[in-house]
Amino acid sequence: MSRRTLVGTLAALPMPALLRTTSALAQDASRLASWNDGPAKQGIIDFVRTTADSSSPKFVPPEERIATFDQDGTLWVEHPMYTQVIYCLDRVPAVVATRPDLKNREPFKTVLSGDRQAIAKLPLRDLEEILVATLTGMPVEVFEAEAKKWIETAKHPRWDRLYTDLTYQPMLEVLQYLRDNGFKTYIVTGGGQDFVRTYSQHVYGIPPEQVVGTASGTKYGYDKDGKPFLTKEPKLLLNDNNAGKPEGIHLEIGRRPRAAFGNSTGDRQMLEYTGAGGGSRLMVLLLHDDARREYAYGPAQGLPDTKVGTFTQALYDEAKKDGWTVISMKNDWKRIFAFE
Amino acid sequence: MSRRTLVGTLAALPMPALLRTTSALAQDASRLASWNDGPAKQGIIDFVRTTADSSSPKFVPPEERIATFDQDGTLWVEHPMYTQVIYCLDRVPAVVATRPDLKNREPFKTVLSGDRQAIAKLPLRDLEEILVATLTGMPVEVFEAEAKKWIETAKHPRWDRLYTDLTYQPMLEVLQYLRDNGFKTYIVTGGGQDFVRTYSQHVYGIPPEQVVGTASGTKYGYDKDGKPFLTKEPKLLLNDNNAGKPEGIHLEIGRRPRAAFGNSTGDRQMLEYTGAGGGSRLMVLLLHDDARREYAYGPAQGLPDTKVGTFTQALYDEAKKDGWTVISMKNDWKRIFAFE
Repeated sequence: MSRRTLVGTLAALPMPALLRTTSALAQDASRLASWNDGPAKQGIIDFVRTTADSSSPKFVPPEERIATFDQDGTLWVEHPMYTQVIYCLDRVPAVVATRPDLKNREPFKTVLSGDRQAIAKLPLRDLEEILVATLTGMPVEVFEAEAKKWIETAKHPRWDRLYTDLTYQPMLEVLQYLRDNGFKTYIVTGGGQDFVRTYSQHVYGIPPEQVVGTASGTKYGYDKDGKPFLTKEPKLLLNDNNAGKPEGIHLEIGRRPRAAFGNSTGDRQMLEYTGAGGGSRLMVLLLHDDARREYAYGPAQGLPDTKVGTFTQALYDEAKKDGWTVISMKNDWKRIFAFE
Repeated sequence: MSRRTLVGTLAALPMPALLRTTSALAQDASRLASWNDGPAKQGIIDFVRTTADSSSPKFVPPEERIATFDQDGTLWVEHPMYTQVIYCLDRVPAVVATRPDLKNREPFKTVLSGDRQAIAKLPLRDLEEILVATLTGMPVEVFEAEAKKWIETAKHPRWDRLYTDLTYQPMLEVLQYLRDNGFKTYIVTGGGQDFVRTYSQHVYGIPPEQVVGTASGTKYGYDKDGKPFLTKEPKLLLNDNNAGKPEGIHLEIGRRPRAAFGNSTGDRQMLEYTGAGGGSRLMVLLLHDDARREYAYGPAQGLPDTKVGTFTQALYDEAKKDGWTVISMKNDWKRIFAFE
């Protein structure tokens, strides 16, 4: 193919596809339209500009541009409960239908009662039993189909909108801005890897192979026709929380991130590990301080802590001491959701 | 940026970068220069052409173009022993130097004796003890540095060349040909994930995050200065052989491959799993039948089987029955190594 033909063909291609794959072109920060000017926005822009600038001493070769994002509370709403836990609770009737022995057994009985207050009080051990019963024991394709169907219809009680509408618009802009500048974006979530992979591409533009999460083992076997399939097993391989985040990053990525985004103590080790790599690194902590537009929680706000998204004073102090960027939802974000 | 400026900028970029990222442009098969014409070469070309052709009923969207390759015996020589096992044996003196209690203990004593015949006879259990002692217990960066140093100097006894020179030139061409056509290429190896990741980029053009292999857990901790690091633990997380290959693919990729390449019973389940996905799929089995230029082994050749790279008659029969493509090194490859 001659260069002339090549250029002609390229000109006919959709522009965004080209821009996205052409890391040599520096991308401006106009993507960050939902951000107010301030140190958080500026910190992100400065990091991206210097890492992508080959004349900068902070330049990072494209192949090392790995950025990891916590999901719950960092990319989308985690209150009043992790979305995946709601999925599991919603699946209980279907599981009990195939296993009637569970009907009168706790914690399934409480879940079936629909008593929200009692459900909210279930201890962690009971929640884990529900997770195992609803997330394992089926072929991976069956799980995937069920989770997809749910995520396309289930709604958040406060906004009466799909959970996938409750992603933070400013963070979607950061994801795209990083990708425009040659970063590979990953989700590193305490949530189930298989669950998040069912919607990561269309919601975040992140393909399934770039989702690291809590993972159970699978077991290879054959159906009656000799066709092979994988079954989700109740065997925890990776608890992708706390120390499990850098461990999961090493297992499934094998490179230390250049940028990491989180919002709770569950992300602390991922942020520390990123910072310990030396050279150009960006660590970002999202502070939920906007009770009106979203939620406010964590003692850093002088507010009572909650079951989910623990944001402690110690974490806040570590962020300040180690030069992490702290985002205030209230002050740094012009809008929170795309639908606003 | 105007379209005119964009096109001008693109024209100034190096061509290969553009070609590699522009999956819309069909790439010809001139890459396969080390292949003789025949059904194996043609099978690969037909698969790539139809999957990349948007007007074909066998078209595969770019994001689903995942191709997985076994390493030992499929991408490089696995005789007389897996390269990584040689690395582990070579590391024994250094390990014993820091742990003198091992010096007079088996199997370390035998390895230190240098008696090749005795070493070759060590049972699997002893080999595993050597693997654990030489692959775990150190920070991941220390392991990485040691493995890199070794791979840059260690040589294969038959050819007196670096192990990394003993990659199969025709397979390197297939990797590039697939990437030119929008495939993401992965290594899925029974070998250690961390080991292969130290050289996968410069040897195969495959980044560390696209290497799935046998993996031990790591443990997050802090050094005396409070700096976090990961230690390689003697805890097997993924045995990436046999059924472990599709299980590892699900864990670390989360998509079923469209193409898979292997050479032994350790790859059987990966090939079966790939084939069971329906639509356009390519399963390729490499037959070592060239004793003069490389090695010949496996009962499919009427030859005695060996410890490594088991290629059974049953595997060969399954390949024929299920329409897998079989490569004969002897007949299908013009040359085997780049240095020939």
